[in-house]
Amino acid sequence: MEPVIILVRPQMGENIGAAARAMLNFGLTELRLVAPRDGWPNPRAIAMASGAASQVLDRARVFGSLAGALEGIDLAYATTARGRELTKPVHTPASAMADARAASAEGRRVAVIFGPERAGLENDDVARANAIITVPVNPDFPSLNLAQAVLLTGYEWGRESLPAHPNPTARRPPGEAPASRIEIEKLADHYERQLDASGFFFPAEKAPGMKLNLRNLWSRLPLTRGDVQTLHGALRQLIRRHGN
Amino acid sequence: MEPVIILVRPQMGENIGAAARAMLNFGLTELRLVAPRDGWPNPRAIAMASGAASQVLDRARVFGSLAGALEGIDLAYATTARGRELTKPVHTPASAMADARAASAEGRRVAVIFGPERAGLENDDVARANAIITVPVNPDFPSLNLAQAVLLTGYEWGRESLPAHPNPTARRPPGEAPASRIEIEKLADHYERQLDASGFFFPAEKAPGMKLNLRNLWSRLPLTRGDVQTLHGALRQLIRRHGN
Repeated sequence: MEPVIILVRPQMGENIGAAARAMLNFGLTELRLVAPRDGWPNPRAIAMASGAASQVLDRARVFGSLAGALEGIDLAYATTARGRELTKPVHTPASAMADARAASAEGRRVAVIFGPERAGLENDDVARANAIITVPVNPDFPSLNLAQAVLLTGYEWGRESLPAHPNPTARRPPGEAPASRIEIEKLADHYERQLDASGFFFPAEKAPGMKLNLRNLWSRLPLTRGDVQTLHGALRQLIRRHGN
Repeated sequence: MEPVIILVRPQMGENIGAAARAMLNFGLTELRLVAPRDGWPNPRAIAMASGAASQVLDRARVFGSLAGALEGIDLAYATTARGRELTKPVHTPASAMADARAASAEGRRVAVIFGPERAGLENDDVARANAIITVPVNPDFPSLNLAQAVLLTGYEWGRESLPAHPNPTARRPPGEAPASRIEIEKLADHYERQLDASGFFFPAEKAPGMKLNLRNLWSRLPLTRGDVQTLHGALRQLIRRHGN
């Protein structure tokens, strides 16, 4: 079962809407709100959520306190900025969601708690959680907004259910230097120019599509520097034998 | 060396600023812009970027074409929505950035290319890339914005340099049922109530902090259901022997 997302004292409706949208990108639909500043429902939240309004916001439940919102939850994570609180296990989104998947598989319900914009969760809120999630960001520039923090949580929740490498890159032979992008571009140019001169791109209305296919072909191949030389040489030789 | 982020024909200055901010969260600072719609520099981009303005936007380079922006790049990824293009290797952000780290370690320069808001990259742009990145989102609700797509790329670039489990959760004994959150909350209530009655929380001005510490303590322990029973029993026994 997917984690519940709990927003504690969220301020701007737009941010609630953006968080709902971030959730639904990764299939999360259960939202609980604790004392939203501007009441509920909130038209600005609905406007921002677009398609997530009906699937997430319309079903959101509102509570007066975090204790109430934790009803039915067995394992709760509080999200905080780096270094805020060190008396509990501190997770990255990755390690938290790995644990959350294990807990969920045992039938335990998981929630992730997010604090208000800027101020973040108060210590009393964090005290109710079993563990902390801190996104590892540049310590000199930590500027994730609420929806982005929710996004990374959803992304990590979903990552295991999705193949890491749906269509893996073919590998170059070990030890051989890869061709640079510019070498491959020059190779593509060379072939395109000569094939054009040879009348290959015919009929004219199909030429742009044919050229595009050919560019795609070269750039997706894991060519070595040696391969590129070979292919240039082959082309030159063909022209020498059969060309003008 | 960190990947270069290339934004192709970005429209809203705000989105350029938000992308710069997303980058700097993960230490990415090299931005290249291809034909930004509203020219450059863009005051709205600067306003949105806040602290990332000086470190990212002020150093951004502007190009007339993607071909120009790929100067010095050896390995380029194009980000597209799911299913757009299947003639090249299709990566998740995770697998792309794993490959990018390996390429970077070999001294190759990597770029990730993002298209304009809504329309995304054109086929001619994608043709210049070696591979594709598609974020695995809910196919019924794919709604990542530009800054969010940049954010996930930066997050994946940074993830290996950061510990997955900075402060790992202590583990429960195998085979024992974990206490639920509500069981732990009741245990915390029980102790707090009895300790309060016993005069433990003294002096009064320190009581809130002491209670908070105690709540934190209970909730961070990997207690089993049996542990909770034991601790309730211990408390009851103490009161029976020494209480009122």
